[in-house]
Amino acid sequence: MNTDSFEDLRLSLRTFAEERDWDQFHSPKNLACALSVEAAELLEHFIWLSEAEVQRLTPSKKKEIAEEVGDVLLYLIRLSDKLGIDPRKAAVAKLKVNARKYPVSRVKGSHKKYTEY
Amino acid sequence: MNTDSFEDLRLSLRTFAEERDWDQFHSPKNLACALSVEAAELLEHFIWLSEAEVQRLTPSKKKEIAEEVGDVLLYLIRLSDKLGIDPRKAAVAKLKVNARKYPVSRVKGSHKKYTEY
Amino acid sequence: MNTDSFEDLRLSLRTFAEERDWDQFHSPKNLACALSVEAAELLEHFIWLSEAEVQRLTPSKKKEIAEEVGDVLLYLIRLSDKLGIDPRKAAVAKLKVNARKYPVSRVKGSHKKYTEY
Amino acid sequence: MNTDSFEDLRLSLRTFAEERDWDQFHSPKNLACALSVEAAELLEHFIWLSEAEVQRLTPSKKKEIAEEVGDVLLYLIRLSDKLGIDPRKAAVAKLKVNARKYPVSRVKGSHKKYTEY
Repeated sequence: MNTDSFEDLRLSLRTFAEERDWDQFHSPKNLACALSVEAAELLEHFIWLSEAEVQRLTPSKKKEIAEEVGDVLLYLIRLSDKLGIDPRKAAVAKLKVNARKYPVSRVKGSHKKYTEY
Repeated sequence: MNTDSFEDLRLSLRTFAEERDWDQFHSPKNLACALSVEAAELLEHFIWLSEAEVQRLTPSKKKEIAEEVGDVLLYLIRLSDKLGIDPRKAAVAKLKVNARKYPVSRVKGSHKKYTEY
Repeated sequence: MNTDSFEDLRLSLRTFAEERDWDQFHSPKNLACALSVEAAELLEHFIWLSEAEVQRLTPSKKKEIAEEVGDVLLYLIRLSDKLGIDPRKAAVAKLKVNARKYPVSRVKGSHKKYTEY
Repeated sequence: MNTDSFEDLRLSLRTFAEERDWDQFHSPKNLACALSVEAAELLEHFIWLSEAEVQRLTPSKKKEIAEEVGDVLLYLIRLSDKLGIDPRKAAVAKLKVNARKYPVSRVKGSHKKYTEY
């Protein structure tokens, strides 16, 4: 498998679910729950860490974090497949929206939300 | 831009942050918070929907959901870049771990967690 | 300790943190992260369950869920204490706001968001 | 209404849902989703703030945060009611568990998880 391919991951996840007869559980709502829970598990690693501590994560901690990153991406691809959404196209489109919402001249160096300007 | 390219998105997000002088806010911890919040915004669309209602989402609702999918992927790529993690490789590796944790012969048709078998 | 007392829990949590010298970690931001992670751990129990399965949770599963409910309340009280917010008063005030946002005559039997009417 | 009373909030939420015929939507799973989303909305206020900025929140921002605190407590009480769990008792019980998991002599000044000692 070409590890760089989104499309391969999408198909592998389909096969994974079919082999286990898990398609019945993979409703968009359930997958959205799972995605949110995985994102929280990723966040869990950072809750009590200072910026400095984040800069010196041990390799084993880094590996645990990479596993959570993997989980988030897997559920995002699976959910998108179920909804007929291409996550990369969605990301490219959203980045364009963000560029309009947050023009450089206006937001430089500020973290206000676009509704707060 | 090749919209299918993860690498292009990673570099576009770098430029996006640099132009706005937002790199100072993009610590891994802040980005992990943002990712988790975006995943929840995606989930928000499904909270009160039945399975049947999810099957007949309007195009405008589908578009809103795609925007949230885009946000989740953008923050996941940005966070991964900051941590030096390749999210696709992490996903492929995690899928292999999951295949070992959940062998077909054992879990077919069941949604128990691997710790519950 | 009077188990019904919010105030007692607030003070117990203060003592708990002080005794462990954990006050240094209990910034509002960190506590908001922890609260969000605990809410996700609570949600985790329900991801793959059908409504019918939720109706027949085993006592041991119910106990695990109650522990997560406890964690959410503990972090909510602790975060509120740090911010000088009374969570009960905030809940009563928000319930009044919700009553105005969602007048019975308008929303009866519908789960639309108030912005969608 | 006695604003300090958990029990009053529980009953008010019951009435609120009944009047709107919303009981049909208030399954434990849906409420657990809603709780998680509200906790994320609370976290959203803190994503990009430094510790110093959190110390000087404006009154209007503080009010927005208090509204989210209220939402989290409302959904926690409603979910607990549906599950037959008393959240205060759950919190008291969990605090005792935590005291055993994290004995002062062992954890003083450290934020490691109990599984990491």
